[in-house]
Amino acid sequence: MPVRRGIVVAVTTIRATVLHTPSPDRLDVLVDQAIEIDDTGRIERIGAAGPDAHADVVLPDDTVIVPGFVDTHLHAPQWPQLGTALDLPLDQWLFEYTFPLEARFADLEFARQVWDHMVPSLLRHGTTTVTYYASIHEAATTALAETCARLGQRAFVGRCAMDHPDGTPEWYRDPSPEASIAASARSIDEIRAIGSQLVQPIITPRFIPACTDEALTGLAALAADTDTLIQTHCSEGDWEHGHVLERCGVTDAHALDRFGLMREHTVLAHATHLDDTDRALIAQRGAGVAHCPLSNVYFSERAFSARAAIEAGVRVGLGTDIAGGPSPSLFAQCGHAMVAGRRRVDEGEADARVDTTTAFWMATAGGADLLGVDAGVIEAGRWFDAVAIRLPDQVVPDGDWASRFERLVRLATPNDIRSVWVAGRQVV
Amino acid sequence: MPVRRGIVVAVTTIRATVLHTPSPDRLDVLVDQAIEIDDTGRIERIGAAGPDAHADVVLPDDTVIVPGFVDTHLHAPQWPQLGTALDLPLDQWLFEYTFPLEARFADLEFARQVWDHMVPSLLRHGTTTVTYYASIHEAATTALAETCARLGQRAFVGRCAMDHPDGTPEWYRDPSPEASIAASARSIDEIRAIGSQLVQPIITPRFIPACTDEALTGLAALAADTDTLIQTHCSEGDWEHGHVLERCGVTDAHALDRFGLMREHTVLAHATHLDDTDRALIAQRGAGVAHCPLSNVYFSERAFSARAAIEAGVRVGLGTDIAGGPSPSLFAQCGHAMVAGRRRVDEGEADARVDTTTAFWMATAGGADLLGVDAGVIEAGRWFDAVAIRLPDQVVPDGDWASRFERLVRLATPNDIRSVWVAGRQVV
Repeated sequence: MPVRRGIVVAVTTIRATVLHTPSPDRLDVLVDQAIEIDDTGRIERIGAAGPDAHADVVLPDDTVIVPGFVDTHLHAPQWPQLGTALDLPLDQWLFEYTFPLEARFADLEFARQVWDHMVPSLLRHGTTTVTYYASIHEAATTALAETCARLGQRAFVGRCAMDHPDGTPEWYRDPSPEASIAASARSIDEIRAIGSQLVQPIITPRFIPACTDEALTGLAALAADTDTLIQTHCSEGDWEHGHVLERCGVTDAHALDRFGLMREHTVLAHATHLDDTDRALIAQRGAGVAHCPLSNVYFSERAFSARAAIEAGVRVGLGTDIAGGPSPSLFAQCGHAMVAGRRRVDEGEADARVDTTTAFWMATAGGADLLGVDAGVIEAGRWFDAVAIRLPDQVVPDGDWASRFERLVRLATPNDIRSVWVAGRQVV
Repeated sequence: MPVRRGIVVAVTTIRATVLHTPSPDRLDVLVDQAIEIDDTGRIERIGAAGPDAHADVVLPDDTVIVPGFVDTHLHAPQWPQLGTALDLPLDQWLFEYTFPLEARFADLEFARQVWDHMVPSLLRHGTTTVTYYASIHEAATTALAETCARLGQRAFVGRCAMDHPDGTPEWYRDPSPEASIAASARSIDEIRAIGSQLVQPIITPRFIPACTDEALTGLAALAADTDTLIQTHCSEGDWEHGHVLERCGVTDAHALDRFGLMREHTVLAHATHLDDTDRALIAQRGAGVAHCPLSNVYFSERAFSARAAIEAGVRVGLGTDIAGGPSPSLFAQCGHAMVAGRRRVDEGEADARVDTTTAFWMATAGGADLLGVDAGVIEAGRWFDAVAIRLPDQVVPDGDWASRFERLVRLATPNDIRSVWVAGRQVV
């Protein structure tokens, strides 16, 4: 065991081939590596394994290590409706299906039952970090954070703040702007009191149509006072985009900025309707987009241009948008991100193509960068948030790693996932 | 054992709940049925199981019977490149990746190795019927038909006819129109000589750009003389569509009709560029479309409107278009068919929406109807081509079969498939 800073540090060494994407257009294939993980869960060292290298775990030849998936947008209380009820426009879908379901999370036992089903399922899908919208309920929100801490999933957990009397039903809203801000502040304290390095609070104004100006301004101040990240929706579809233009006189991105919500690492879900000035503003603030390509099929009228955002310096990760997106798999989202890129090309944006490398980068390194998490790439100093996954079998072995990577991203299923680690702890 | 027409017939009875879609907008849920299958593989009788009903097989409560999937368009020799090399326009993709791979099927041993990998994999995905494009090689084509017969997959197997000196490379083409027609005729005889009720030949002019007028006319005559089905591509993308307009002066559908190729049950792959007169012609002839929504993302410039085709009376099934579509799963195609429908809505075709029922209908009953196969629905008189599949688990059991069906179509993976039968024979 190596000695570091005078302390004996336990190190676990895993021997395997590593595939990761440190930038949107770069796939690194690191064949037969020895990955040394220290007892805090960070990667101590990674390099080619010598012929006699020690290893505690040696993965089989058909299995590789990839970074764990980062799901940057997921509505936890919508988990029970996953895969259903996607036949309505967004505003109707919210009032008829989604708000009634979310309101049930006033029942803490019901909430715990859902969290205990959802978090292990997401881990089995290789999702090591999630940015969660919870419900408006503090107890259910804290219980979600506790579940993630207990089961070992890295998470940003946000009590959903929504107080606008027009944009929310009276049976599912915060009673006032003051109550909305106070409940969000208490939720931050409760989540921090859990004391897990894996789980952080995130301030979560649902979206402008569901929040009063007073609440939005107060939540921005709370973020600054408590140094807490922010997530919200931004320009998801025609309806929301039009609502904000009419109410605020500017686009969603500029409105959020005026309220003080556009900060470093602010997560903007969807953002399908951005223009050049929106992208420039988001890039300048260090915020970014949770790109939810499958959800956009159902609830946006256009496809997000990931390529334009990346070129403009906007941080971009992928999100499932459960249950607006009817799949818990980030592999599926990679496929749909490529579909969205192709649609943009067909609509005249010649450079909008998203390939497997860019899609996988968004699902891993891009998402981690959006949230400011030291993960998403398998390199020394980062958390060992990783997945061991079996490569799809090949009838004609070709030895071409670029093709194997393409096949992995396009053809692998959750059943090919053999192990999942978060901060060095094996959780699947 | 019941007596029928004086012969004692062995009957197997399976007890399970059945979900199927007899028409594009109708989901039938048949709870706790007894399905009696005779020794020819057809469904003898289906009805509610009484409390004391005999059953040879009782499926668990979390598992249902659905019709087997019908994949109406699949290029068998492209199986080794599945999931890769989708970054080029169609014409380049063919000449740089696909034709060189297909040319390798001159090697019969190589072909057998691929078929023995592909057919079991497709069966494990629940695909009970496939319409195959093989390569230009008679021996490899016959070997594919033999493999399907041996492993119990229902199949239409077509030697790919392609003789145009401009539309094909000199190292991968039939040497003349006469040779193309003669080889196709021999292939029909060879496949019929196998003597399997599961496997039929299908006449397969690759597409108009790859075939001379003489070959197209001769293959149409061969179809009429031998009463053989036809498959080809039709109006897949701008390039093919433009080629046919320029060469023939009419759209692809009308050109195929002039050559005599637009017959009852002719399978037209893609057909993304159809107009109203094309749809009317196809419906009048009793032909139909193999809708390949994922492939269209890569190689067509627009989405096929399944809804417009169905409304016009055109037969419609789903196809993977392996390897132009990078997934072997018809479940995935159902999802992409819904995406394609939504894209058409966003582009102004208000009624173009495809829901889970319509998508599943295309993947089962629609495909069977396109090919004239008595399957795709679990009812008396049809072949028992079926899949036993585990329903996705529910955190909040709601007893609502419509939601369970939606979840099944959107969330099930091949790993949820427990058994597959073709003509009553269990093949998985």
